[in-house]
Amino acid sequence: MERLRLSLEKLPADAIVVSHLPNIRYLCGFSGSAGLLVIEHARATFFTDSRYTIQSQHEVVGARVRIAKKGLLRAAGELLRASRSLRRVAFSPAQVTVAQKEALDAAVFRKVRWLNDGGAIEKLRAVKDAGEIEIIREAAELVSRTFERTRRFVRAGISELNLAAEIERDFKRQGAEGPSFETIVASGERSAWPHAHPTRKLVAKNELVVLDQGAILRGYCSDMTRTVFVGKAPRRIKSLYKAVQDALEAGKAAAQPGVKAQDVDAAARKVLRRAGLARYFTHSTGHGVGLEIHESPRLGKGDQTVLTEGMVITVEPGVYIEGVGGIRIEDDIVVTAHGAQELTTAPRDLIEL
Amino acid sequence: MERLRLSLEKLPADAIVVSHLPNIRYLCGFSGSAGLLVIEHARATFFTDSRYTIQSQHEVVGARVRIAKKGLLRAAGELLRASRSLRRVAFSPAQVTVAQKEALDAAVFRKVRWLNDGGAIEKLRAVKDAGEIEIIREAAELVSRTFERTRRFVRAGISELNLAAEIERDFKRQGAEGPSFETIVASGERSAWPHAHPTRKLVAKNELVVLDQGAILRGYCSDMTRTVFVGKAPRRIKSLYKAVQDALEAGKAAAQPGVKAQDVDAAARKVLRRAGLARYFTHSTGHGVGLEIHESPRLGKGDQTVLTEGMVITVEPGVYIEGVGGIRIEDDIVVTAHGAQELTTAPRDLIEL
Repeated sequence: MERLRLSLEKLPADAIVVSHLPNIRYLCGFSGSAGLLVIEHARATFFTDSRYTIQSQHEVVGARVRIAKKGLLRAAGELLRASRSLRRVAFSPAQVTVAQKEALDAAVFRKVRWLNDGGAIEKLRAVKDAGEIEIIREAAELVSRTFERTRRFVRAGISELNLAAEIERDFKRQGAEGPSFETIVASGERSAWPHAHPTRKLVAKNELVVLDQGAILRGYCSDMTRTVFVGKAPRRIKSLYKAVQDALEAGKAAAQPGVKAQDVDAAARKVLRRAGLARYFTHSTGHGVGLEIHESPRLGKGDQTVLTEGMVITVEPGVYIEGVGGIRIEDDIVVTAHGAQELTTAPRDLIEL
Repeated sequence: MERLRLSLEKLPADAIVVSHLPNIRYLCGFSGSAGLLVIEHARATFFTDSRYTIQSQHEVVGARVRIAKKGLLRAAGELLRASRSLRRVAFSPAQVTVAQKEALDAAVFRKVRWLNDGGAIEKLRAVKDAGEIEIIREAAELVSRTFERTRRFVRAGISELNLAAEIERDFKRQGAEGPSFETIVASGERSAWPHAHPTRKLVAKNELVVLDQGAILRGYCSDMTRTVFVGKAPRRIKSLYKAVQDALEAGKAAAQPGVKAQDVDAAARKVLRRAGLARYFTHSTGHGVGLEIHESPRLGKGDQTVLTEGMVITVEPGVYIEGVGGIRIEDDIVVTAHGAQELTTAPRDLIEL
């Protein structure tokens, strides 16, 4: 399979050991919870345990399947040990524990020179193919429909937890595997906390409510935020909202092939700075989204990744003012030759409920 | 704080570095997603980043709080480096990645001898105090109430996903933070897969439905399985159910202080073996439950942990027969001087719907 070949192609290595489950799913299709993949230039071997004998036969493409009886690391280590041509082997130090590395070393018995894989697979995953984009589009449309249906529950007297319950129920009823992260419903003063977990707090009249939600569909995540006002929004809120919405549009407009990830962040941030709100925008502008809810690139200062066609990212500027509340608006977009194409479709104008 | 002192007490070490978030929550109360704890004999220091400045002040007990500007590992490493008396430092090789260990080593600059902590904190966590038991009891009663309310949705024509949606919605409506794992709803032939994810498949007349569900309440997990039959159960199903129920009761009866974890498994397994069903019981009998859904001990062959008062475990025998279906019944119990006390309260007899 092409992805297997590409994962090793640019590394000065004879093989790569892959342990991170989203990477394994991406490379060979296995969606279970126990797996290890060893990719060589001429072949690939997938190890799992006996619980997954049937599932791995159904799912795995491009690799031989081996059921490991005495542990996946030991089985992979023994493969590396048996093959005399495998001298330099890449792995991801950020995804392998010290204990796992020790088990690998014990099994290969000092024959191997280990290399850092430099995030090779994450780089591949950042650029989605047409099939992946279609699934994420479906997951984004699903979350947009959920928002359209559940916004009618947003009213004074409902608890944040009950709102989150309705949103997550709607995901599953539409066929989603589940939420792609714990749904955020933050109302009133709590909306000023960017990652507030929903509580028993009741939504009240004249409060902002931040709704940040995403669904998993066939393994892929979506991620969308909308902020609504319960009642008639005062001028100050409207003007803050307008600034965030302008920042969102500026960020999306900047997301062109050839532009650096950090420059999308700078474009959105500039709008809020000009509105005198820079100090209230306390997080980065977005992130890649795919098999994981947060993946490469990061739309923030210091990320020099050059955007290319097929990258799917969130753009999600926000302002958080203690005593006033928070406003965040977030879309998922795919980078195309003609600029950003929105995947999330729910209305972006301020909704007063 | 007592837990901080105990975590280091039995180790031949001057300090212990704790990175696993459930361990951090257990030891000092912090519930956020970025933290590192360094415990010395005379003091403890908790590191987090600027997102958690306010939250850490509210939550952390027994440790100084330090906001790390250049990474938690670097800050912790610099603390170890600065203190001349910290020579032997324990850590958990299973919970620290190779990259994290390299960052620590770089910051400490070769002054330290690293020791394996031997799961010291997991051993402490396995024995719950009265306050923890009360929270798990509440989480178990919550899931029992959810089952009583949602069983009326189990009927021919509802999809597995929609059933899971109702269950998880009910958790949140009762104030749970969310499900403690992805709710399992497996009907008909799919009930023979012990860990089937719910699908769009519709429940049909004359099918078994396995419902395995748990909720998180104030950080603590519950975990309960019930199996129902849609229609009037044939004699074969009734007799299989009875065997599993007898195995459940035998497992609970065996869960006494002083008994080894593997002997609880053996007691449940013996009942199924005598019924000629041993080969259909393909997993271990249970596991500890607490801040994590799976924690020490494991009620399976080879786990020599001696049960003591205050341990909270699941007992969950099951049989899985291709072409027939699966039956699993699971309770959460606390080990007391007077034997197992059930925390999950929903009826255990076969329910025909």
